[in-house]
Amino acid sequence: MKNTIKYLNENHARYEQELIDILKVPSISALPDHADDMLTMAGMLKDEMQKIGMDEAQIIETEGHPVVYSEWLKAPDKPTLLIYGHYDVQPVDPVDLWSSPPFEPVIKGDKLFARGSADDKGQIYIHLKAIEAWLATLGDLPVNVKLVFEGEEEVGSIHLEDFIKEHAAMLAADYVVISDTPMFREGYPGITYGLRGLAYLQLNLRGTNTDLHSGSFGGLVKNPINALVEILSQMKDVDGRILIPGFYDDVLPITENEHIKLSKLPFEATDFAKSIGAPALFGEAGYDDLERLWARPTFDINGIWGGFQGEGAKTVIPAEAHAKVSMRLVADQNPADIAQKFKAYVESLIPESMEANIQVMHGGFGYVTDLDNPGLQAGVRALERAFGKEVDFLREGGSIPIVKVFADIIQAPVLLMGYGLPDQNAHAPDENFSLYNFHKGIESIIYFFEEIGKLKD
Amino acid sequence: MKNTIKYLNENHARYEQELIDILKVPSISALPDHADDMLTMAGMLKDEMQKIGMDEAQIIETEGHPVVYSEWLKAPDKPTLLIYGHYDVQPVDPVDLWSSPPFEPVIKGDKLFARGSADDKGQIYIHLKAIEAWLATLGDLPVNVKLVFEGEEEVGSIHLEDFIKEHAAMLAADYVVISDTPMFREGYPGITYGLRGLAYLQLNLRGTNTDLHSGSFGGLVKNPINALVEILSQMKDVDGRILIPGFYDDVLPITENEHIKLSKLPFEATDFAKSIGAPALFGEAGYDDLERLWARPTFDINGIWGGFQGEGAKTVIPAEAHAKVSMRLVADQNPADIAQKFKAYVESLIPESMEANIQVMHGGFGYVTDLDNPGLQAGVRALERAFGKEVDFLREGGSIPIVKVFADIIQAPVLLMGYGLPDQNAHAPDENFSLYNFHKGIESIIYFFEEIGKLKD
Repeated sequence: MKNTIKYLNENHARYEQELIDILKVPSISALPDHADDMLTMAGMLKDEMQKIGMDEAQIIETEGHPVVYSEWLKAPDKPTLLIYGHYDVQPVDPVDLWSSPPFEPVIKGDKLFARGSADDKGQIYIHLKAIEAWLATLGDLPVNVKLVFEGEEEVGSIHLEDFIKEHAAMLAADYVVISDTPMFREGYPGITYGLRGLAYLQLNLRGTNTDLHSGSFGGLVKNPINALVEILSQMKDVDGRILIPGFYDDVLPITENEHIKLSKLPFEATDFAKSIGAPALFGEAGYDDLERLWARPTFDINGIWGGFQGEGAKTVIPAEAHAKVSMRLVADQNPADIAQKFKAYVESLIPESMEANIQVMHGGFGYVTDLDNPGLQAGVRALERAFGKEVDFLREGGSIPIVKVFADIIQAPVLLMGYGLPDQNAHAPDENFSLYNFHKGIESIIYFFEEIGKLKD
Repeated sequence: MKNTIKYLNENHARYEQELIDILKVPSISALPDHADDMLTMAGMLKDEMQKIGMDEAQIIETEGHPVVYSEWLKAPDKPTLLIYGHYDVQPVDPVDLWSSPPFEPVIKGDKLFARGSADDKGQIYIHLKAIEAWLATLGDLPVNVKLVFEGEEEVGSIHLEDFIKEHAAMLAADYVVISDTPMFREGYPGITYGLRGLAYLQLNLRGTNTDLHSGSFGGLVKNPINALVEILSQMKDVDGRILIPGFYDDVLPITENEHIKLSKLPFEATDFAKSIGAPALFGEAGYDDLERLWARPTFDINGIWGGFQGEGAKTVIPAEAHAKVSMRLVADQNPADIAQKFKAYVESLIPESMEANIQVMHGGFGYVTDLDNPGLQAGVRALERAFGKEVDFLREGGSIPIVKVFADIIQAPVLLMGYGLPDQNAHAPDENFSLYNFHKGIESIIYFFEEIGKLKD
């Protein structure tokens, strides 16, 4: 192990250069003009996998951009890790807001600036270079490893679920590892153990066949916008608690252990409010800020429209009014069940003067990994050995739908060991990746293989 | 008087033909291409005024389309009527929905189909032909008459207020008469004695500097659409009563006499709801339907918008949300006072997490003529003599801003003696005017001059 870390330290400059080389490839999955770059990138990854000693390296076609796969399965009786990442990147517009060209990587201080540096090429290279260090110094890995890097994450992983289903046997594993999330703060490793789910619906109200003049009809008919605001105002009480009957039935409360861990994270409400230009924050009474964001469900109106939106005044009673609403869910809420409860509650509030139509748009389950899960604990030990700091236990307020897909099909816990930083500008100009995190990330994955190797299969 | 009515009957076919002739002129005020038609129309009206015996007939320039004016002031010690109407018409789009070309008048049964037939050329011709009948048979009028026909009613009478102010002495009168409203039902004459006013405002809420991702921020911040629906839902109680403090302070209740007259009008809520495709009607508890429409103020949200309105789902917490709201007012509510009360109430409801901006867009006073006003009573007698039916006492749920302008500047009651019908399609394809009403309308104005002539100056 000492030799492996020595190898990492001696080869770090080369590792950085190799990362820079792959960051020069503009593998933008969303833009058809970059189809050749996608193939170039996939080919470079396949070559790299072969070079570091992975077996069966191959480019597997999908109906979209291909998946690059390889495996190393020579550790009998040891657990198997399925390491997922993506080699496609976001578009670069507005390109004139970049301080340097997005595909001409530049190092400034500790940061490597390039599109894809944090999201996700820098993070998949952490795994490749950890494998290289193990195999170059010890000739073996202490675990079985499968690498699956897709090329469509930035366009919604549109073909990945089918791919996983079709290749479920090939992808079978004990743990799924994803490095594509940010740490909470610079210098402190983080592990993300929970994600929120989602239920998204649209509510359409119709009061009359056509728009009406508010002078000729006002006072006689119910206005569908008035009805809509009356209905939607009954979704939460003044304390921010959601009023849909049965809404909280399946919410897993956070444990005392989680509460202690969350309360260790620094969060300054005043600074945060200032950073987003909010006069004040607002959330469900009785919970800390980060609990509200990560471990409590929400109800938000994402869009509303009806009647006249132009300049000036038009005295119309519109025929229709519409709203898009969504609820962020937490484990173990079921999005279909929540959608049904929302529908039933809203239907009970529709006045007799309105026709309503409620569309369920889409949904996803929340996800949470047990903090006592041995794989997660192995990750914690590895991160703490490398970074020399206690791990931040994080959740994500949003959803990463592919996590739940992996968990359900592979039937394995998903460990989100991310090495980005909050100011990494993923999806924005001046995307950057911390070279300290790149180095410590590789070191932590070297330890992680060792820690996982100590677990029973 | 017998001779005058005989003259009307003998000349009615010619009257219809003359009306058809002016309906052929496409005097569309909104379309610059029709500027020459506007001048043609104004010239024809001036010629007609001279021909029937009016004095001082003239076309008076404004900054827009001209006003046509004439007077007959040879009845000393008699009241003076100022008769207002308009010679411009609405555009004709969608022209392919017309059964016959809009400027090629066609008679089918009792109806004359043409753009402008009801709104308002047919109705101003009623006055011209009544004057002709008086002067042709008796050589004098029993009242003083001033005719003022504008060419910009369909574009908001944009220069009329200035015109009235500048020519206030010329326009001085004891009563203002306008024939530009519909009767309530076929065969029954109507007189409109009340109009509603308006206060129109826009409410803008801002929660943050930019749109936020509902996963990354949901639970921490107040959503401005949620805040907007919570505020707007507090404008009315479940009985439809407006909750703005002091809102009803200046509302004139309808008199027992008015209530009796209103309750005589046939109004079938079920049929009416069906006609507009409403599952049911809704209005303020404790009032009859027509009272709600004509004599009670309202609160309507005329437009609302914020966040994502496109196809599909976008999990955004928008930075801003907006609504346009208006209140139909009744005498003696003051629109500026009501706007102020709305602002103060809304401001008391803004949560600390929101910045609000409330814009007063525009407003207008309601209007009501005393049912005992001698001019109105003269109109009632005249209408009942001509139509042989009791007059329907009507209010208008909307506003006719120029009524209040006349009332304030001329300092005279405004009598709305309209001869249109509810299905006249003003502003729509197949606009039409009842020839029965044209004939009876002229007869009623002949009597009206006589009835007014009996009043003291």
